[in-house]
Amino acid sequence: MDNIKKAAILTIGDELMIGQIVDTNSAWIASFLDQHGWQVTRKLGVRDDIPQIMEGMSLCLQSADLLIMTGGLGPTSDDLTVDALCQYFKCNKVWHEETWERVQAIMRRFGREPSEMHKLQCYQPDGAEIIPNDQGSAPGTIFRRENKIIVSVPGVPNEMKHLLKDKMISLLPQGNPVEHRIIRTAGEGETILGEMIKDIEAALPPDIKLAYLPHFMQVTLRLTSYGHDKKELLDQFTQQIITRLGDLVYGTGDINLSKAIGEMLRARTETIGTAESCTGGYVSHLITSVPGSSEYYLGSVIPYAYELKTSLLDVSETMLKTYGAVSEEVVTAMAEGVREKLGVTWSIATSGIAGPGGATPQKPVGTIWIACSGPNGTRSRLLKLTRDRMSNIEYTSIASLVLLRKMMIEEA
Amino acid sequence: MDNIKKAAILTIGDELMIGQIVDTNSAWIASFLDQHGWQVTRKLGVRDDIPQIMEGMSLCLQSADLLIMTGGLGPTSDDLTVDALCQYFKCNKVWHEETWERVQAIMRRFGREPSEMHKLQCYQPDGAEIIPNDQGSAPGTIFRRENKIIVSVPGVPNEMKHLLKDKMISLLPQGNPVEHRIIRTAGEGETILGEMIKDIEAALPPDIKLAYLPHFMQVTLRLTSYGHDKKELLDQFTQQIITRLGDLVYGTGDINLSKAIGEMLRARTETIGTAESCTGGYVSHLITSVPGSSEYYLGSVIPYAYELKTSLLDVSETMLKTYGAVSEEVVTAMAEGVREKLGVTWSIATSGIAGPGGATPQKPVGTIWIACSGPNGTRSRLLKLTRDRMSNIEYTSIASLVLLRKMMIEEA
Repeated sequence: MDNIKKAAILTIGDELMIGQIVDTNSAWIASFLDQHGWQVTRKLGVRDDIPQIMEGMSLCLQSADLLIMTGGLGPTSDDLTVDALCQYFKCNKVWHEETWERVQAIMRRFGREPSEMHKLQCYQPDGAEIIPNDQGSAPGTIFRRENKIIVSVPGVPNEMKHLLKDKMISLLPQGNPVEHRIIRTAGEGETILGEMIKDIEAALPPDIKLAYLPHFMQVTLRLTSYGHDKKELLDQFTQQIITRLGDLVYGTGDINLSKAIGEMLRARTETIGTAESCTGGYVSHLITSVPGSSEYYLGSVIPYAYELKTSLLDVSETMLKTYGAVSEEVVTAMAEGVREKLGVTWSIATSGIAGPGGATPQKPVGTIWIACSGPNGTRSRLLKLTRDRMSNIEYTSIASLVLLRKMMIEEA
Repeated sequence: MDNIKKAAILTIGDELMIGQIVDTNSAWIASFLDQHGWQVTRKLGVRDDIPQIMEGMSLCLQSADLLIMTGGLGPTSDDLTVDALCQYFKCNKVWHEETWERVQAIMRRFGREPSEMHKLQCYQPDGAEIIPNDQGSAPGTIFRRENKIIVSVPGVPNEMKHLLKDKMISLLPQGNPVEHRIIRTAGEGETILGEMIKDIEAALPPDIKLAYLPHFMQVTLRLTSYGHDKKELLDQFTQQIITRLGDLVYGTGDINLSKAIGEMLRARTETIGTAESCTGGYVSHLITSVPGSSEYYLGSVIPYAYELKTSLLDVSETMLKTYGAVSEEVVTAMAEGVREKLGVTWSIATSGIAGPGGATPQKPVGTIWIACSGPNGTRSRLLKLTRDRMSNIEYTSIASLVLLRKMMIEEA
C-alpha cells in the first residue's frame, strides 16, 4: 500500500458552495481517476476567491501527487482560476495567440465576432502546458512541479470530460492497478448481510476492501482491490459472497432491481402490470424507466379514488366498506383484479397511507399494504413506515418489487 | 462583512471518493446553511479512514466555526465516524441505552429482533449531545468545543435532512442575517426571462443578488439580500419581477409545479386524472407526491401495451392502425377517453418514444405527443426531444403540466 498513487479534486465556484447546483463533476472525475488507478484522497470545494483557491490547492497537494481543478476559467469577473494559478506558481499571465485563434474560429462557426471579453480567456500562465479545448473557448493547463502535477480544466461538464479523456490522461503518469466488483442485493439490511458474511469479510487481505451502500431494502456491496495480481483473489471473494448471500443477490455490476426483474420476465417470456393506490404510479415508473421495458410491462391502473377501485378493478363495494381501502383484503383484490384486467403473468398492488394526512386511530401514517399476484396465487405484506411521504412511496415501491422477485424465484 | 459566520461540510465515504455516487447531500446542506445565514467556505470529501476523517475535520475547522459531517455512522466495519470523533475529541465510546431502546423499537416494528451488530450503533461518544433520529437507527451528535460546533449526521439523505431540519438547527447559533425570496416560473427559458427583467436586474443594489436556476421548462429565480434592513427592498424587487413575469410565475417560496396546479384544482373544486403511455406513471407520481393530492387527483390509466389503449381507454383500433400509437389523434383520444372513464374535470395524456429503442424512420427517439383535455376541449403538443430516456420522461411530464396549467388559466 506504500506506492499508492494519490490524487485530489478541487472544485471552484460559489454556485456549489451555496448548494445552488449539485457537483456532478467531482463524481465523474473521481470515477475517471479511480478507473485509471488513482486513489482520490480529498475532494475539496471552495468559493470564487483567489486566496481560497490557493489555500485549496495547498490542502489538496498535502496528500496527493495529482490535483485536478475544475471551474473558474470563464470570461467573467468571478472567474479567478488563472490568476490563482499564476500567484500560486509565481508565473505571469501572458497572451496565448493559439487560444485566441481557436476562440475566433469557434465564434465564427456560430456566425459571431469575438468580443473584448473573449480576449480575457486568451491570457494564460506562462509556466504551464496549454492544452487546446475542442469543445469550448477556455483551454486546460498542466503544471509539473517537484513531482506534483496540477491540472486545471473548465467546469462545463462536456468540456471538462473532453479535455481529461481525450487530451490529458495520456499526458499524465499511469496510476496503480485497481479493480472493483459490485454485488447488488435486495431484501435484507446491511446489518443482516454483515452478519451473514462476517467470516468472509474477516478473511479479506488488507489490500481488498469491502463497502456497504444501503438504500431502501437494497444494499450494494463493493469489493475493491489495490495493487498488482489481486484480480483472481478479488473474483474468488466476490464469488464466495455471492454464493453465501444466495437469492438476496439480484445482480452484479451496473444494474438496478427493476432492470433485474425485467431480465427475469424477459427470459421467462412473462409480463407484468400494477394497480397502485398509495404509490401513485411510482412502481410503474421504476419499471418503465428501464429501456426495453415495453417487452414485458403491459400497463397499470391507478385507482386513487375510492370509487375507482370498484369501477376500474371490480373491487367489491362491500369489501371496501367492511375492511377499508387500506386492508389486506382490498390490496389482494386489487392485485388479482388488475392481473385479470390486463392479462399479465404477474401483478403488484399497493394501498396505504403515505402521509402526512389521511391517518385514522387504527391506521396511522405509514400503514401500507402491498400484494403480488401470480400464476400460483397472491401474497401480501403489511408495511409500517415512519418516513416522509416521498420516502414512504419509494420504500413501498421497492418493497413491492422485492416481494415480486421473491415470488418469481420461489415459484419458478 | 467582517462577522460572517462561516461553516464547512465534511462528507465521508469511499463511494463518494471513487465517484460511485454523486454527493447530493453536501449540496442540500450547503443550501440549508446558506438559507440560515451560514457561509460555506469549504466542502471536503474524504475516504472511510480514521486518520483521513480526523485530518478532514481539522482542515474544515481551520476556516469555519460550524462543521457539518455526514456519513460513516452505519453498523458495518467501514463506518468509522464515531471512532474518529472519539479520537479527535479524546473521549470514549460508551453504551447509549436510549439509542438501544430506539433501535429495538424500530426492529420490533418490522417484526424482528435486533442483532449483535445493531448494538454497535448504540455506542456513542461520551462527550457529545446525542440527538435521537426518528427515521433511522444512528443518532446525530453535537460537540461544542472552544467556540466551534461539530455536528455529525448519517449519510442517508432522509435521515440527514430530518436531523438537521427538525432536530438540530434550533440547537445551533443563528447565522448572519440573510433573506431569500424564491419566484417559481414555468414555460420559458432563462434567456427569455433574463431579457424580460433586464432593467429590474440592472437596478439591483450590490447587496441583493439574483440567481437563475433552470430545470426542464422551469426557472426558479432566487433573490438574496445580505445584511440588516434589506427586507423591504428585497420585497419590492421581488414584487416587481412577479408583476413583470405575469402568468409565467406559478408560485413563490417552497412550492413546485404539481403543488401549484393542485392548489388551483382545490380552489376550483376540480379534479384530474392521467392516461400515460411513454411517461409510464411519472406524471401521476409528480401529482401524487404532493400531500393531500387525493382531494383532486382521482386516478390514472397507463395503457403501455398497444391493445390496452383500446381495452382500457376505448381508443379505436382503426385509429391506432391508421395513425400509430404515437400520434396527435391517439393522444387526443387517450386524453378524452380517460377524462370520461374517470369522470375528471381535466386529463393529461402522453404517447411517444422515450428511447433508446422504438424509433422508426418517421418517428425518431424523442418524438412525443402530449394532450390535455378539459371542459372546453382538448389541446395537444408535439415534443421533439434529444435527451436520454429518463430525461425525456421527466421533460415530457413537466411539459404536460405546463400545458395543463396554461389551459386552466386561459379557460378559468
